[in-house]
Amino acid sequence: MVQIVDSSILENPVFRTYCFYSSILVVKMLFMSPLTGLTRFRFKAFANPEDGATMKIKPRVDDKVERIRRAHLNDLENISVFYVIGFIYTLTNPSVAWATLLFRVFTAARFIHTFVYAVFVVPQPARALSWATGFVITGYMAFKSIMHFL
Amino acid sequence: MVQIVDSSILENPVFRTYCFYSSILVVKMLFMSPLTGLTRFRFKAFANPEDGATMKIKPRVDDKVERIRRAHLNDLENISVFYVIGFIYTLTNPSVAWATLLFRVFTAARFIHTFVYAVFVVPQPARALSWATGFVITGYMAFKSIMHFL
Amino acid sequence: MVQIVDSSILENPVFRTYCFYSSILVVKMLFMSPLTGLTRFRFKAFANPEDGATMKIKPRVDDKVERIRRAHLNDLENISVFYVIGFIYTLTNPSVAWATLLFRVFTAARFIHTFVYAVFVVPQPARALSWATGFVITGYMAFKSIMHFL
Repeated sequence: MVQIVDSSILENPVFRTYCFYSSILVVKMLFMSPLTGLTRFRFKAFANPEDGATMKIKPRVDDKVERIRRAHLNDLENISVFYVIGFIYTLTNPSVAWATLLFRVFTAARFIHTFVYAVFVVPQPARALSWATGFVITGYMAFKSIMHFL
Repeated sequence: MVQIVDSSILENPVFRTYCFYSSILVVKMLFMSPLTGLTRFRFKAFANPEDGATMKIKPRVDDKVERIRRAHLNDLENISVFYVIGFIYTLTNPSVAWATLLFRVFTAARFIHTFVYAVFVVPQPARALSWATGFVITGYMAFKSIMHFL
Repeated sequence: MVQIVDSSILENPVFRTYCFYSSILVVKMLFMSPLTGLTRFRFKAFANPEDGATMKIKPRVDDKVERIRRAHLNDLENISVFYVIGFIYTLTNPSVAWATLLFRVFTAARFIHTFVYAVFVVPQPARALSWATGFVITGYMAFKSIMHFL
């Protein structure tokens, strides 16, 4: 049997770039959980009675924690969609340079979004613009994918 | 070197159908964010102090906004799972007509779910039935995938 | 034209193992929705006026329901990321035995997490440890993937 290399997916440089930036975004999303956890400890604001049991702390809601949770949920809403449409978009034969630019700007925009939302709060429209950048990129990739697979 | 076309995935018509309906569902999910944002502006109900800063509005919770957010979260819970299991299911050699029907009904059910939940509220069981339709389809695809890859 | 089998993805045993455990995790996540729904009925705690309309029950928040919802959201945050990074990691040529072990332990850890969070509440650090197990595995796979696709 002839050893065959899957030239259409694994050797596709756009797909490799997609894998790289998706992995970076996975690390970015993973960090939201310990950030929430540490902030819960810092402000002694836990969601469950068993979490603060040894310190005899009752559950309470803290705005610092909720802000990080909203940033995390916003990641789930926007980055989950990127994982899917970024993968499908790599199959529509975009140019390597253009696709790489889209993936790179999307990734940067999501880092900025979390920073101005949950790390160092910057007045609007900082958060709105970083969110909109990611939104436009995923929307564009979805449009191109629909046209391609119609 | 011989140019090889990846016949098993990219030329698989079920996979192409999956890409098409997934892209449609990405657009559907993307629309939930501006819908939430516009409803927040309409009812002046923001989640963060900086969002209503220029209008001097304090954050408040509004049920119209929360309803759209619940519909969005329901999308995240159900459509994210579809993206994964729909992809895996395409690799189990289903018939093109049957797989296309499943993807199409799932997509329609999720549009109906959002409509009766967050756009024009219809008495139950409208929402329960549209949710259950998607649930049964993803459950069926998961069952077939487990049997295939066992 | 020669019929070509895509040896690099579909015949990759690591990828087949990934498909199997991802499908199991899809079923696990799907079960969270009826669990939430049944608990809402049991404690008559609905999120929307139309849900309890025939029983004339107003919406109310119940901690038993919220606990299941937090477990579900934790699944979304952690298992969604696994779907993506597990897929990318299968493309980095890991050994079959090692990758299978990672997928298996991750899957077990997520079942344990839900059990000790929302089914039978066990004092900490039961939940923290089961969460951390999944976190370390996805973090490791992300690190290996970034190094591979750099």
